[in-house]
Amino acid sequence: MSQVPADGKPWAGRFSQDTDRVMENFSASEHFDRRLYRHDIEGSRAHAKMLAAAGILSADEYEAIIDGLGTIREQIEAGEFNWSQRLEDVHMNIESRLTDLIGDAGKKLHTGRSRNDQVATDIRLFVREAIDAIVARLGVLQSVLVERAETEADTIMPGFTHMQSAQPVTLGHHLMAWVEMLDRDAGRFNDCRTRLNVCPLGAAALAGTSYPIDREMTAEALGFDTVSGNSLDSVSDRDFLMEFNAAAAILAVHLSRIAEELVLWSSERFGFVDLGDAFCTGSSIMPQKKNPDAAELVRGKSARVIGNLMALLVLMKGQPLAYNRDNQEDKEPLFDTLDTVVACLDVYIAMFPGAQFNRPRMLAAASEGFATATDLADYLVRRNMPFRDAHEIVGKVVAAAIDKGLRLDQLTLEELRVFCNAIDEDVFEVLTLEGSVSARDHIGGTAPAQVRKAIASARLRLKNG
Amino acid sequence: MSQVPADGKPWAGRFSQDTDRVMENFSASEHFDRRLYRHDIEGSRAHAKMLAAAGILSADEYEAIIDGLGTIREQIEAGEFNWSQRLEDVHMNIESRLTDLIGDAGKKLHTGRSRNDQVATDIRLFVREAIDAIVARLGVLQSVLVERAETEADTIMPGFTHMQSAQPVTLGHHLMAWVEMLDRDAGRFNDCRTRLNVCPLGAAALAGTSYPIDREMTAEALGFDTVSGNSLDSVSDRDFLMEFNAAAAILAVHLSRIAEELVLWSSERFGFVDLGDAFCTGSSIMPQKKNPDAAELVRGKSARVIGNLMALLVLMKGQPLAYNRDNQEDKEPLFDTLDTVVACLDVYIAMFPGAQFNRPRMLAAASEGFATATDLADYLVRRNMPFRDAHEIVGKVVAAAIDKGLRLDQLTLEELRVFCNAIDEDVFEVLTLEGSVSARDHIGGTAPAQVRKAIASARLRLKNG
Amino acid sequence: MSQVPADGKPWAGRFSQDTDRVMENFSASEHFDRRLYRHDIEGSRAHAKMLAAAGILSADEYEAIIDGLGTIREQIEAGEFNWSQRLEDVHMNIESRLTDLIGDAGKKLHTGRSRNDQVATDIRLFVREAIDAIVARLGVLQSVLVERAETEADTIMPGFTHMQSAQPVTLGHHLMAWVEMLDRDAGRFNDCRTRLNVCPLGAAALAGTSYPIDREMTAEALGFDTVSGNSLDSVSDRDFLMEFNAAAAILAVHLSRIAEELVLWSSERFGFVDLGDAFCTGSSIMPQKKNPDAAELVRGKSARVIGNLMALLVLMKGQPLAYNRDNQEDKEPLFDTLDTVVACLDVYIAMFPGAQFNRPRMLAAASEGFATATDLADYLVRRNMPFRDAHEIVGKVVAAAIDKGLRLDQLTLEELRVFCNAIDEDVFEVLTLEGSVSARDHIGGTAPAQVRKAIASARLRLKNG
Amino acid sequence: MSQVPADGKPWAGRFSQDTDRVMENFSASEHFDRRLYRHDIEGSRAHAKMLAAAGILSADEYEAIIDGLGTIREQIEAGEFNWSQRLEDVHMNIESRLTDLIGDAGKKLHTGRSRNDQVATDIRLFVREAIDAIVARLGVLQSVLVERAETEADTIMPGFTHMQSAQPVTLGHHLMAWVEMLDRDAGRFNDCRTRLNVCPLGAAALAGTSYPIDREMTAEALGFDTVSGNSLDSVSDRDFLMEFNAAAAILAVHLSRIAEELVLWSSERFGFVDLGDAFCTGSSIMPQKKNPDAAELVRGKSARVIGNLMALLVLMKGQPLAYNRDNQEDKEPLFDTLDTVVACLDVYIAMFPGAQFNRPRMLAAASEGFATATDLADYLVRRNMPFRDAHEIVGKVVAAAIDKGLRLDQLTLEELRVFCNAIDEDVFEVLTLEGSVSARDHIGGTAPAQVRKAIASARLRLKNG
Repeated sequence: MSQVPADGKPWAGRFSQDTDRVMENFSASEHFDRRLYRHDIEGSRAHAKMLAAAGILSADEYEAIIDGLGTIREQIEAGEFNWSQRLEDVHMNIESRLTDLIGDAGKKLHTGRSRNDQVATDIRLFVREAIDAIVARLGVLQSVLVERAETEADTIMPGFTHMQSAQPVTLGHHLMAWVEMLDRDAGRFNDCRTRLNVCPLGAAALAGTSYPIDREMTAEALGFDTVSGNSLDSVSDRDFLMEFNAAAAILAVHLSRIAEELVLWSSERFGFVDLGDAFCTGSSIMPQKKNPDAAELVRGKSARVIGNLMALLVLMKGQPLAYNRDNQEDKEPLFDTLDTVVACLDVYIAMFPGAQFNRPRMLAAASEGFATATDLADYLVRRNMPFRDAHEIVGKVVAAAIDKGLRLDQLTLEELRVFCNAIDEDVFEVLTLEGSVSARDHIGGTAPAQVRKAIASARLRLKNG
Repeated sequence: MSQVPADGKPWAGRFSQDTDRVMENFSASEHFDRRLYRHDIEGSRAHAKMLAAAGILSADEYEAIIDGLGTIREQIEAGEFNWSQRLEDVHMNIESRLTDLIGDAGKKLHTGRSRNDQVATDIRLFVREAIDAIVARLGVLQSVLVERAETEADTIMPGFTHMQSAQPVTLGHHLMAWVEMLDRDAGRFNDCRTRLNVCPLGAAALAGTSYPIDREMTAEALGFDTVSGNSLDSVSDRDFLMEFNAAAAILAVHLSRIAEELVLWSSERFGFVDLGDAFCTGSSIMPQKKNPDAAELVRGKSARVIGNLMALLVLMKGQPLAYNRDNQEDKEPLFDTLDTVVACLDVYIAMFPGAQFNRPRMLAAASEGFATATDLADYLVRRNMPFRDAHEIVGKVVAAAIDKGLRLDQLTLEELRVFCNAIDEDVFEVLTLEGSVSARDHIGGTAPAQVRKAIASARLRLKNG
Repeated sequence: MSQVPADGKPWAGRFSQDTDRVMENFSASEHFDRRLYRHDIEGSRAHAKMLAAAGILSADEYEAIIDGLGTIREQIEAGEFNWSQRLEDVHMNIESRLTDLIGDAGKKLHTGRSRNDQVATDIRLFVREAIDAIVARLGVLQSVLVERAETEADTIMPGFTHMQSAQPVTLGHHLMAWVEMLDRDAGRFNDCRTRLNVCPLGAAALAGTSYPIDREMTAEALGFDTVSGNSLDSVSDRDFLMEFNAAAAILAVHLSRIAEELVLWSSERFGFVDLGDAFCTGSSIMPQKKNPDAAELVRGKSARVIGNLMALLVLMKGQPLAYNRDNQEDKEPLFDTLDTVVACLDVYIAMFPGAQFNRPRMLAAASEGFATATDLADYLVRRNMPFRDAHEIVGKVVAAAIDKGLRLDQLTLEELRVFCNAIDEDVFEVLTLEGSVSARDHIGGTAPAQVRKAIASARLRLKNG
Repeated sequence: MSQVPADGKPWAGRFSQDTDRVMENFSASEHFDRRLYRHDIEGSRAHAKMLAAAGILSADEYEAIIDGLGTIREQIEAGEFNWSQRLEDVHMNIESRLTDLIGDAGKKLHTGRSRNDQVATDIRLFVREAIDAIVARLGVLQSVLVERAETEADTIMPGFTHMQSAQPVTLGHHLMAWVEMLDRDAGRFNDCRTRLNVCPLGAAALAGTSYPIDREMTAEALGFDTVSGNSLDSVSDRDFLMEFNAAAAILAVHLSRIAEELVLWSSERFGFVDLGDAFCTGSSIMPQKKNPDAAELVRGKSARVIGNLMALLVLMKGQPLAYNRDNQEDKEPLFDTLDTVVACLDVYIAMFPGAQFNRPRMLAAASEGFATATDLADYLVRRNMPFRDAHEIVGKVVAAAIDKGLRLDQLTLEELRVFCNAIDEDVFEVLTLEGSVSARDHIGGTAPAQVRKAIASARLRLKNG
């Protein structure tokens, strides 16, 4: 059994046997949790400040600690920090280095705290930042989409239900539907941010501490809104990770739904959009291929975000209070979800401005599929027929048109009047795509005028954000 | 191929072939979505009211519809409604019956709406009610726990990390940790409620409608805060179901974590609690058994809530806009999650008041495991030793105590001073459980005084709710 | 607190307090596990037979038990059995009724067993049957697809990668790809069946029993291949449920992928297939709609199967040995998965024979998208150009054709020779769809001759399978 | 928009615009799929061999390719290979380097294949190897457990159901339950191996190839059992990844269940095992802590394996045939699952030999909780009382013993006879733990003799396995 000395580890006092090498490899987390270095240093600075104010650290010790932490941050950012697996994690790597740099004062930094409340603080700071990064990108993506929606406010395309042509809509309206989806995402992330912005420092291992700490002071220094109300809960709570990842999973579902449409619209069968050479790739064997890879990858990447959410729920589900080592597994899904979501948003932000919509193909598609049949039924209702009867009659008109291989507006008035003699010459106005679209002129409707109102309203919201 | 006539179905006009019997069984949803009957009728009443105000229905027609819907509701609640699989779903069962009852006016009710916005409205109403039911129970359960916490504010028990004795805490403090967890759950449900309380009616199939509808009027009649901003989004959005189920999954994780502790505490190895004969069951073979079944079932049932969340995310993930029939699958996970969560809350609410905590067993357990070792380290720090050095020394003291088979407070002063001669007679005060607990006297700490403050604050919160 | 007497429950001896009504509702399972009645009775018959052979039951007692169980089965199947929630589950309902019917002999049936090994046996019998039901349907569906594949062995359609036209394939080839997928599904179910076909009876509560039982005898009577090797494992093992549900989830993914294609192929944009009026439904508002609901529902239902797998994994993940009440939650996901998968297979089996493929639309689509570009590259390779260079040149040919708005076979020889003067008149043969398809004439290739070979081989497999 | 030239990419011919930098970062996979380098080279060697045999490569070209691939493998393993993100993935990095090294022959290697069948081959080779690595470790872990089981074949401990003391068992029996669980795991992995060992090479992009390839030759060279039967399926099938990950998830559930028990047994409340300093770590604040981190981490890591399975199911669920870029996301969950499972197995293999079981604590625990109550009931049955009546009476005996605060074997004969006068002096033999355990002497039972038989049988299996 190859072993590594426990000696030097921050908890070695009561151990008589060394750590097994297999175990050290298995349990070390510094290779991934070093990503928290900024948050860890920030937390330590606030903690030291409070310890100094409480008289637990002298002014000199406090200054030494602040200086030392500053040096460490610089070393890390310059790539000159010597990370050690033996020191297990980011916290002990930094604390140990601090003591190397400044001596005994470094050994006093951990007074009145534990890794349990320290890591809880670090992750909250990290997730807070993560949320801000995501919400900012959501705003940018929405703005990009709003721009495109304005240009395409009059562009007619088929609206689909069940992937069947349903009614004509405008592309601007469709793009604004995506903007709405992203709006709710931002709301969910912001709610999560509010709920998590609570400082756990002071909970120490699980019971609080016997030192005369000032928790509000630390909380304020770190930008938290308040302090946590229960020390046991403070070190065992990972709700904010589950909630963050749930918000991310719903966002990923949205990005995947958009991707699904982009992939379809890019196919020769639809031909509605060209995503641009810059966001497509080709085939190693088929020389003609131009594939919508960006959209496909976004669609695929939603799977890992959902997988990460499941992992976090499973992780937490069976744990008794307070802290268990299982929780070390909470960070990699968090990092992966953040990176994935940000990358997907970035690629959409970069891609949409150059996407070329093919208006003729969209218009041609809208004119197929009897998309104005509902307008014909509505026409009959306005001639005092109950809606259900009108629906039944138009169904028969459509069946006849299919038999003849004609569109509704290609039937003659006589042919139409076979089914209902309340139909007059003015019916042909309601059978046009433009007439159909313009008629849906209420809030939320697809009429170009309404789309422009929705755009104006979204711009205001994004500006005030 | 056995078939059932399409004729009579609300969309039969253009169909020439009947529906296959296998298909009808496969696709009908009335056997589960009838649970939405109240919300469907409520939605239809509001829609009819608006149609009447817009002059689309006459006063007589409106009254006939309202009366007819009232009759239908009574019939359903009396168990006298004849549900028909042929009519597919709750919506068509009710509309068809309405027309049977009142004639042509019934055929006009669907003017300006579609099943797509109708079902979206119904589910939102349902989820809103579901949230209120859950949040109310969360409050009751919190109150129950706060009561128990008050009685146990001074009860000392071991606080665990890694399932190892860590530091003494009070049972009241532990129970209040659970109250905190449930508090965040209520917050998440309420945020979801705010976000979903938006009326989709008027979106019709996907594009809006050409009738002169008044969407604000319908929204207000149904208690919605506002109207949805995009018709395509309105009929395809199921965010609120995913968000509701995510909140429920996190709650289920909490209930499972509590259950995990109750199961452990009920075991002979812990002996901390007797959940009462009324909430335990026995064994078919082992006559002595009294099993904490309620807790085990809560723990087990969390799995299905997580499974339901997974199902909903998978369901939505690949869908292009707007409505697809896949969405019929959104209801059963919703119903199951609601029922499961409510049943778990109800059983906890009923069980906790009668649970008997075993204070002597808890106290005895707290006195094992060197739970005041941290207090000894803190004692040394107050004698000017850096924390890291104090930690190291106390580690060695513990190792020695293990060798001797003694507790820390059973070591003599001389034995202690072997490790550090800064230790004096007053050390024995900090080694007591009571001293340890009382010393953690800051907000969030386990000191009985702090627990009582937390209780007072929780009561205020619950009262103002 | 409303209560129900524990008295009469099979474990009431040591209980002094009655069961809370909330708890009884919460914990009873007879409303769903009654579905195991046949398997429970079958298990009891085998157990009684063994007890009689071991001299634990007299011949008279044995006969009385067998007769009583027969009566109970008849009563259940006639709908005349009075299920009681107070008796908790299917096992105790049946045993209690048996004692009512035949007196003391009934009280002896549970000798040497426990509900723990009893339920483990019942579920294994149920899953074994479930697997046989699914595998039989997989065979029928494969046969249906093979029939269609034969008719469409020469039908040319575009093969897609990235939803872009890639190379022409035959529809028969595509249908046979589905047959391959289903073949692996059958394999997974059969492997699961082999692994689960092990009898847990005799494990009793968890430790085995002190009676002189003959486990092989019971196992043989129930058609198990062997007896389980460890009693603790026997009552805690639910691997077969996880494995069954994993196989079902992969099958559901396959059925969903097929559904995804059917939905696309049914859309006006593709127009490749008409699934038939009998398997489509219409819209409540849009008279022209004919939606591929069967396919959409299959796609949606895959979500619940995946959710059920998740639930089962979460359920088992944290359980210490041996039996815990959490396991009561193992049955509903099992039942739901079985019903869902069977219903989806049944609807496909009913639907495929009537689906009408639109060969002209498929052929027209195949001729777009430069699907024979790879053939042109291969042509150049045969003229001694390295493949990478050929790929590069054909890429430029395609770019030129896009500019001119022409298909590859519409370019003149001169236009082609601009890019490579090794091109001769015979190039036009390789640019035809038929030429391209026929050229892929090796095992697994899309050439009609190969498709027919694959069909013959599948038929043989299905016949012997 | 920062861009990188598409030029030089293997599909650049038809592209006129460069790749966006954001897109290149987003879509490149070489940073993780380089892990497949050995399998990619192995696959290319076999493909080249077949091309040479078919006359598509000259002998010289073939030799140059083999040499070049050898050089590349050496460079990669020496860390001297210059990986390029621009070349997207491992396949193009290697092919491009090959052409740099050997010129035009390198450009011919891709003749008759595509990245689609190439990557399908690479992953199958990788998973095959992964399965062998896992199955080998399963055997080692089983052997380690069998050794411990032999030493503890007579060690009495409480057997738990519902975490309550149920009946006495032997520790050896409990350890052998774990061996059984792992046995089924090996079976699942091996079944998966058999099913995946099918060669997809020759499917090319999706339709097969027009070159005269010999698929059996390639398959044989790569150790595959056979060739795939359908080219469309070959490039779109990822069943083996889902099945592999499902097997891994069930294994992870097992490892987590074992971990759950180790964590409990390590707690002071149980005190059944000391996992050793070498596999525990301490606390940064509490000097006395020795935490069972290895077990907690294994328990936690099961969550990510379940998450990975969910990710893969979600990934595949909505994909139409044949290949989509989503599939690039299939590799990271695979790698993570493999690494996680192997690490968990390795830490168990290293830890178990040094774990110290505390026999006195186990024995003491077994003597509590009325664990022999079932034996008393069985005793009454042997005196001709129906089991149900015996169960009822013993329940009352237990209730009386609880009142008196005595164990069953501490009641006097008179006290016992109050409940049933069929009880005689010999009852005290069945109330001993040893008597109880030894009485369960049938296959699968906990009697030491049976445990030793199970050990012998497992050893034989492991030796031949």
